[in-house]
Amino acid sequence: MDIKTVNLQEKFATFTDQWHPRIIGELNGQHVKIAKVQGEFIMHQHEHADELFFVVEGKLFIRLEDQTLEINQGEMVVIPKGTNHQPYAPEEVKLLMFEPESTVNTGNQEGERTVRDLEKI
Amino acid sequence: MDIKTVNLQEKFATFTDQWHPRIIGELNGQHVKIAKVQGEFIMHQHEHADELFFVVEGKLFIRLEDQTLEINQGEMVVIPKGTNHQPYAPEEVKLLMFEPESTVNTGNQEGERTVRDLEKI
Repeated sequence: MDIKTVNLQEKFATFTDQWHPRIIGELNGQHVKIAKVQGEFIMHQHEHADELFFVVEGKLFIRLEDQTLEINQGEMVVIPKGTNHQPYAPEEVKLLMFEPESTVNTGNQEGERTVRDLEKI
Repeated sequence: MDIKTVNLQEKFATFTDQWHPRIIGELNGQHVKIAKVQGEFIMHQHEHADELFFVVEGKLFIRLEDQTLEINQGEMVVIPKGTNHQPYAPEEVKLLMFEPESTVNTGNQEGERTVRDLEKI
């Protein structure tokens, strides 16, 4: 069995592209993913998946229908399934996400921002 | 709907006891928990649950049957179900865990270290 310690900053150092999640862990049918994000994402929702965002570095905003969340380094938020949300980040943010294996980044808004077949790094 | 940003250090500041996990998030049938740990825990396993340990502060060791893992701040490890593991920490560690809602801290070794009915903080 291959049980290895995963260093987040080492994993972040392996890529530079933004809005492209990578898988760094799997457990109980869930994926742990990391991504670098900057600028505006699209408003979308996940019909069947709650989604956790944890900010490793930077400041992330998530626009909801009735408020905007500000998530700073060392903070996290859970977006319940069926909730429209639009992440954006004026400066680059290093993000850790936790969600079911089947979750696609753009949820119900398939399009040019959609990334499938994520690498495991 | 109540969607709130969770600050990990603020949550850690609300308690001082060790080896007593608190729930700080719930999603997709999984719990996000935090705990302060120091000293030796017991060797145990979880028959049906993979378990993620993420070190927020400090240095955690996890003794397995054939190796000992060292997990530093900003590092994580997934312990697969059915794997005997014994966490220990010479100095206090602030720990984030991710596991199914049904997971009990001592797994198959019910005893005085077992904590049930975890608070949500």
